Amino acid sequence: MSAPQDSHKDAVTGLHPLDVALCMTPLPDGSVQAQAPAAYWNMVGPYGGITAAQMLQAVLQHPALLGEPISITVNFAGPVEAGDLRIEAVPVRTNRSTQHWTVVMGQTNAQGEFLVSTTATVITAVRRATFSQDDVPHPAMPAPERCERFDTRGAMEWLQRYDMRVVQGAIPKTWDDSEHETLSQLWVRDEPARALDFAALAALCDVFFPRVWLRRARRVPAGTVGMTVYFHADAEQLARQGDRHLLAQASAQAFRNGYFDQTAQLWDAEGSLLATSHQIVYYKE
Amino acid sequence: MSAPQDSHKDAVTGLHPLDVALCMTPLPDGSVQAQAPAAYWNMVGPYGGITAAQMLQAVLQHPALLGEPISITVNFAGPVEAGDLRIEAVPVRTNRSTQHWTVVMGQTNAQGEFLVSTTATVITAVRRATFSQDDVPHPAMPAPERCERFDTRGAMEWLQRYDMRVVQGAIPKTWDDSEHETLSQLWVRDEPARALDFAALAALCDVFFPRVWLRRARRVPAGTVGMTVYFHADAEQLARQGDRHLLAQASAQAFRNGYFDQTAQLWDAEGSLLATSHQIVYYKE
Repeated sequence: MSAPQDSHKDAVTGLHPLDVALCMTPLPDGSVQAQAPAAYWNMVGPYGGITAAQMLQAVLQHPALLGEPISITVNFAGPVEAGDLRIEAVPVRTNRSTQHWTVVMGQTNAQGEFLVSTTATVITAVRRATFSQDDVPHPAMPAPERCERFDTRGAMEWLQRYDMRVVQGAIPKTWDDSEHETLSQLWVRDEPARALDFAALAALCDVFFPRVWLRRARRVPAGTVGMTVYFHADAEQLARQGDRHLLAQASAQAFRNGYFDQTAQLWDAEGSLLATSHQIVYYKE
Repeated sequence: MSAPQDSHKDAVTGLHPLDVALCMTPLPDGSVQAQAPAAYWNMVGPYGGITAAQMLQAVLQHPALLGEPISITVNFAGPVEAGDLRIEAVPVRTNRSTQHWTVVMGQTNAQGEFLVSTTATVITAVRRATFSQDDVPHPAMPAPERCERFDTRGAMEWLQRYDMRVVQGAIPKTWDDSEHETLSQLWVRDEPARALDFAALAALCDVFFPRVWLRRARRVPAGTVGMTVYFHADAEQLARQGDRHLLAQASAQAFRNGYFDQTAQLWDAEGSLLATSHQIVYYKE
């Protein structure tokens, strides 16, 4: 069930693997059908970031959409299996300049029951020009072409979909239970390169390996259970960024009895914030 | 419609105003009825923190509840009017040790239509003892009894429900468009004092005035549209805290075209993290 079956689909269709994942077919009841994207497979299901991107896309392609995304919160409720997905995005309240959405993703099991795998809420809005200011400084980093690319040979499928150049806080080379700070800083973009849009940005917010691995130099089972993205960029800023590398940073604030939190910031190539993001992550031991 | 009508109800029932707000009556369809709490009235509706507390309480009092809260995300979709509220909490997926909830709050208007005012998702879980570590240092602050209490005389009703002692980043005394950093640090507890629980903690995560007022020393219209709380504390830690002051801190990361984000940390009286929280907040100009 979990073996990738269409990771080379892009070679056939000419589509970028992310665009394959974002392909959605409208169903008569207003929901859409998509595929669990084999090109982004993680250990036992799709990479969480691609699921977030699909949940967001279901809103962005909805005929009732107002404005651009301001925030998305995705909760990973249960496993996503290979095959068809159904996503239902509902605009529960539309105001003058904001719109509130609930989104559910699920799959029909062998018994014909629809099982919810993922829930989300999304806020979209029509933005107006106001006082604007970034208050969190971006890290000083060498240009991406001067940084070594993270070697993903033999790694999980989804890691092949990103070009990552880690400057600080790489995944430990030795699992020796030593203590470390949880800050990682890297350059990252889609692989192959692809112009940035909101769905791609949502997916990029989840590229960081579990902070608990870095903190403890110990590879314990871990997985994101909930993730929020606040979009500071509008479509114009995303267009300016194009397919260049983003500057990304993540760290943890607290580890407590099975759950830790992660805060992350993503800047464009010019050092202007694109998004801030937060996760709550399960870990064992 | 917005005039407080039962803010002294506690004087009659002997209940703490927060416990009045958390009173919920089961309805035949599985939802619950509550009241828009006049004792926590803000400018044009209830204080967002109390709405978050009510959304969480609808989950915590649900007969199907598994474990304790790990996270809640609340989106403020539309105004809450004085009077009856209906809250529906649905356990959309229950796993071995985690449970995923969707929650909707709404009111029936004069035309008999049910209007959604608020949406939320909640994750609950059975926690197990693991490696635990706080990685964000708590600020060094004088003891609460040595800090001056914020004078709320003449201020909105909800502010009367909190004892706040601001050490850094108080609300500006002069609105002179000068620039400031967005960090606030304060002691805070319910007023009257009340033993801390998850609902009270969720409400406390929203006590910070809008960061944009501090940043610009300019009182522009502003309001939270979405808020997430990650609970690091379990019921045992909350019980140890009792009714003492919490240490609370908030700052902003980015202001951009009508929306800014806020990150916050709340520690118990011993300096151990209770919760981390995030908001996306609308502002004008």
